Amino acid sequence: MRRIVLTGATGFVGTHAIPALQARGYEVHALGRQAPSRAIAFHQVDLLDAKAVRSAMRAIGASHLLHLAWYAEPGQYWRAPANLDWVAGTLALIRAFREAGGTRAVVAGTCAEYAWGPERLHEDGRCAPATLYGAAKDGTQRILAAYARETGLSFAWGRLFFLYGPGEKSGRLVSDAFRLLASGERFATSQGHQRRDFSHVMDVAAAFAALIDTKVTGSVNIGSGKAVPVRSILERIGQLTGRPGSIDFGARQLSESEPTCIEADVARLRDEVGFHPSYDLDSGLTHTHAALTSTQ
Amino acid sequence: MRRIVLTGATGFVGTHAIPALQARGYEVHALGRQAPSRAIAFHQVDLLDAKAVRSAMRAIGASHLLHLAWYAEPGQYWRAPANLDWVAGTLALIRAFREAGGTRAVVAGTCAEYAWGPERLHEDGRCAPATLYGAAKDGTQRILAAYARETGLSFAWGRLFFLYGPGEKSGRLVSDAFRLLASGERFATSQGHQRRDFSHVMDVAAAFAALIDTKVTGSVNIGSGKAVPVRSILERIGQLTGRPGSIDFGARQLSESEPTCIEADVARLRDEVGFHPSYDLDSGLTHTHAALTSTQ
Repeated sequence: MRRIVLTGATGFVGTHAIPALQARGYEVHALGRQAPSRAIAFHQVDLLDAKAVRSAMRAIGASHLLHLAWYAEPGQYWRAPANLDWVAGTLALIRAFREAGGTRAVVAGTCAEYAWGPERLHEDGRCAPATLYGAAKDGTQRILAAYARETGLSFAWGRLFFLYGPGEKSGRLVSDAFRLLASGERFATSQGHQRRDFSHVMDVAAAFAALIDTKVTGSVNIGSGKAVPVRSILERIGQLTGRPGSIDFGARQLSESEPTCIEADVARLRDEVGFHPSYDLDSGLTHTHAALTSTQ
Repeated sequence: MRRIVLTGATGFVGTHAIPALQARGYEVHALGRQAPSRAIAFHQVDLLDAKAVRSAMRAIGASHLLHLAWYAEPGQYWRAPANLDWVAGTLALIRAFREAGGTRAVVAGTCAEYAWGPERLHEDGRCAPATLYGAAKDGTQRILAAYARETGLSFAWGRLFFLYGPGEKSGRLVSDAFRLLASGERFATSQGHQRRDFSHVMDVAAAFAALIDTKVTGSVNIGSGKAVPVRSILERIGQLTGRPGSIDFGARQLSESEPTCIEADVARLRDEVGFHPSYDLDSGLTHTHAALTSTQ
């Protein structure tokens, strides 16, 4: 049996990654401060404590690593100095994994590494992050790619685009829209003409599980490949919640730094990893609405 | 009086940086494991211990920081995993400095960050490091530039080219050539047609002191601006030591990964920093020879 270390196992993607990895036959070992709700092996460790991470990696002896954890406080993570701690923690984690005999690692990156422009974003495109978060991820990827070349580690970097789905924290677009509209409040937003590439979180988790299960190396976009106007997503949420008139488009000004379009080129994910999503935006939002309703 | 923290104060460049900083009116505080031989303020700290670095930075309360320390074992540093520790240590150091009220920081980078090619290397040129060392420095620079933008830190990154001069460790070209020829041994080397940009270490130290004393931000090449064939350097060392016939050119094969030319564009250093070197290659090697002879 192949043994995998999973970080961020209690997070938005990580929660869904557990069953996706188990379905592929991995014995999942969660590493972090907080125990996942699912009954899997759990090793309580502060991921920013390099010494503790080294001990845990030696004790686990995993062949695979999926590293999803990072500082992710909504509204804060773009600019927080804590991003620097997560660079350091990530480098130490990968090194500890490799030195304990690990052979294949996948780490979560972000579309915020790219120089955002109107064109579809390809993995070989220019990286010029506009934010500290994007720069921290970009720098980490560059260093880890060189470390992997040097040590023979099989290493891939999955660049996340936009997500939604059950378990999303508040302070994010889709979760806030569902929550406010369902509770009878109005939802103030921009005109919503900007186009974004959104995926259902279970597809994202499945894509990471598929990626770790290949020999594909380097950066791989994890997105839908099709950006849609944010407005159309919100209109669909309005329909699903029965409150289409409660969304105030244009009540907020879109920041000038927001690009008109962020869209993933998913040729690598589709053709090299062989991954195909289960949800399109319509079925994914319907599923999310049903999941939210059933847990209330 | 302006107070500066200096790391790497016992290193090749750092040793010479102390008087160069003092000459500009800085009160120099060395930070590191080993006390410098000069009588300056010294704070004994493991630079890879983030907690200890934070305490020291708060105690010192410096306005300026010149960070030269890095893993630098000759023959090892290009490929060593220890480069990852120095990324982490450098990020924590800069953050501790900024959070203790520091305003201006300069960090040592390297020409190994660039995609080496036959053209003169300009700061805006493409970075595509061929080594783990280069990638670690490049990634660090990218992350720190974003951190500096975010926090208002005035930040410059001095990219070192090739060095020689008094105090150079063995295992490096010029120091080994002087040492072996002076002790009566032969010096085995390549044909030496590859061109490299060499500076005297005292000029490099003075350039760092000049750079910290400006408001120039971003990357700045610290080199001579004129690459010369390695052969001509060794021939000059042969003359100075009186043993021109003891150099075996062609006895070693140059690695195929070695580019034909590595030369700095020094327009920023000359025009924006206003720095002009004191030594050309001839006077610099003569000075180095005299210094080595007087200490024997």
